[in-house]
Amino acid sequence: MSLSRAPGTAALVDGVLAGEPRRIAQAISAAESGDGVPELLREIFPRTGRTRVLGLTGPPGAGKSTLALRVAQAYRRRGCTVGVVAVDPSSPFTGGAILGDRIRMAEIYTDPGVFIRSMATRGAMGGLARATSDAVDILDAAGFDVVLVETVGVGQDEVDIVKTAETVAVVLVPGLGDDIQAIKAGILEIADVFVVNKSDREGADRTAAELAMMLDLAPSRQWRPPIVRTVAPRAEGVEAVVDAMESHGGWLGTSADGGRRAVRRVRARLLALLEERFHRTLESRSPEPDGFEDAVERVRERSEDPYSAAGRLFERLVREPAVERA
Amino acid sequence: MSLSRAPGTAALVDGVLAGEPRRIAQAISAAESGDGVPELLREIFPRTGRTRVLGLTGPPGAGKSTLALRVAQAYRRRGCTVGVVAVDPSSPFTGGAILGDRIRMAEIYTDPGVFIRSMATRGAMGGLARATSDAVDILDAAGFDVVLVETVGVGQDEVDIVKTAETVAVVLVPGLGDDIQAIKAGILEIADVFVVNKSDREGADRTAAELAMMLDLAPSRQWRPPIVRTVAPRAEGVEAVVDAMESHGGWLGTSADGGRRAVRRVRARLLALLEERFHRTLESRSPEPDGFEDAVERVRERSEDPYSAAGRLFERLVREPAVERA
Repeated sequence: MSLSRAPGTAALVDGVLAGEPRRIAQAISAAESGDGVPELLREIFPRTGRTRVLGLTGPPGAGKSTLALRVAQAYRRRGCTVGVVAVDPSSPFTGGAILGDRIRMAEIYTDPGVFIRSMATRGAMGGLARATSDAVDILDAAGFDVVLVETVGVGQDEVDIVKTAETVAVVLVPGLGDDIQAIKAGILEIADVFVVNKSDREGADRTAAELAMMLDLAPSRQWRPPIVRTVAPRAEGVEAVVDAMESHGGWLGTSADGGRRAVRRVRARLLALLEERFHRTLESRSPEPDGFEDAVERVRERSEDPYSAAGRLFERLVREPAVERA
Repeated sequence: MSLSRAPGTAALVDGVLAGEPRRIAQAISAAESGDGVPELLREIFPRTGRTRVLGLTGPPGAGKSTLALRVAQAYRRRGCTVGVVAVDPSSPFTGGAILGDRIRMAEIYTDPGVFIRSMATRGAMGGLARATSDAVDILDAAGFDVVLVETVGVGQDEVDIVKTAETVAVVLVPGLGDDIQAIKAGILEIADVFVVNKSDREGADRTAAELAMMLDLAPSRQWRPPIVRTVAPRAEGVEAVVDAMESHGGWLGTSADGGRRAVRRVRARLLALLEERFHRTLESRSPEPDGFEDAVERVRERSEDPYSAAGRLFERLVREPAVERA
């Protein structure tokens, strides 16, 4: 029942609650591995719920990392401590991570009021969402006032992850072509704030105008996402981004949307945990007679279709199935 | 037990097996909706297994759609019929799709030897992978010689989907910055063929050289992915892409990798089906006393941590849990 990493749960709990960066980092690593951190979470969970969770997403090349660091600095100037959780695309074996921004923004790494962490995606379905939620709770329990979750805004998992934030900023840049239009459509409805980054580029006016037009055409919502223009490397417009996010946070507090979002966040989290366990159970149960591997073999040789095979497996696994189809 | 769409399963089965475009389109729409197409699949599955399934992926802005259409045209010149399944990022309510390429390449739409379909992602976890596999089978049963699956190469789901192809081409472009480096790392190991598209751009030599260097540094594999340079709108290099993919296909046939991939494909598919059913079951079971919604409420008010809540729900749902943690 103990964590596989060196420090025991008790040491991690104490360290996290004391805000020790090394223990926080170890706790997040534990969350990324295996079955996660059930014991740690049980201990720290009552101490969570005080942090403000912000999301930042957008297509690759939009300058999200630089903007995230600038936003972190802006919150620091306002007296808040900040945790940054970056959900990067990465590899099962190379563990890709974006280093450029770190070198560029080295100063922020020496600030004890800021904790920055890249999540390694290991290809475990559901696992990344679960680990990211755990990381947010760890930083929450460690006392950070603001936690900023940064994801690439392409791919359902990544969009689902950032949607669990209280306030989501979607970062776009002028002129990235057809694919980006599709991404825009996909993330339009999750934005509480739009950021047009690299606004010194040609086409920034048009991008901002297009966004405004899309908002005009979209089903009317109580909160209309403001559109903020930034040049992140020069920190231009970054205070306005923070103002817009805080303004949305204030609105959430007075609207039913705040409560609905909290419920949605918990639902998504429980579903992710259940799905991860289900996945793990499937993988750990085999081999058994007429089990998963036999089903794979039958489907591979086309003696059984995938739906029928999955239907049989499912009925054996799950009690009182509520789905009627075989 | 009947499909919710207008045509009955029998009509769809007959139409798909006869290669009728309208029925194929209706069958794929049915696969995208609800619980999918268990009855249709049961009927057509024995008629599948003859098509060659190719994957094409890469970051947004790499020109994948144009390249996919050029590759389709190249296969047509070689006498093959081609199905294209495009997995686009899209929205739960806007259903974004990329229209630019379609208008540009209108000629291919009048060719009865080509069938092009965009999958609408509806935010259902697992559902997109399942529906894409179904679409591939439908096109396979309809007699298409080649099926080309195009996805955005960002996001775990999208990468998982393209990994189910027999041969995967990863499309990159010169000079897209730090984020793209991370994506490269993430998709390096799934590439059987690398395409450096927009090779008339500055930096193409460097991108190709960097890729070659990455391959030199990577753990040695039996198949070294060739690096092909293209300018898709002018169809430059497209024949070489097809040659490289076919060469990989030939190699697969003589290597144990071909069989391993077939098994991996079936495993992924059964897992996706099981996970989708699990997800659906969770959503359809509630409300029940002390069920999912009660757990959400307890976690939201922080009287129970998410792992404990998920653990209890899971044990009630799944028989003989193989995972020991509560």
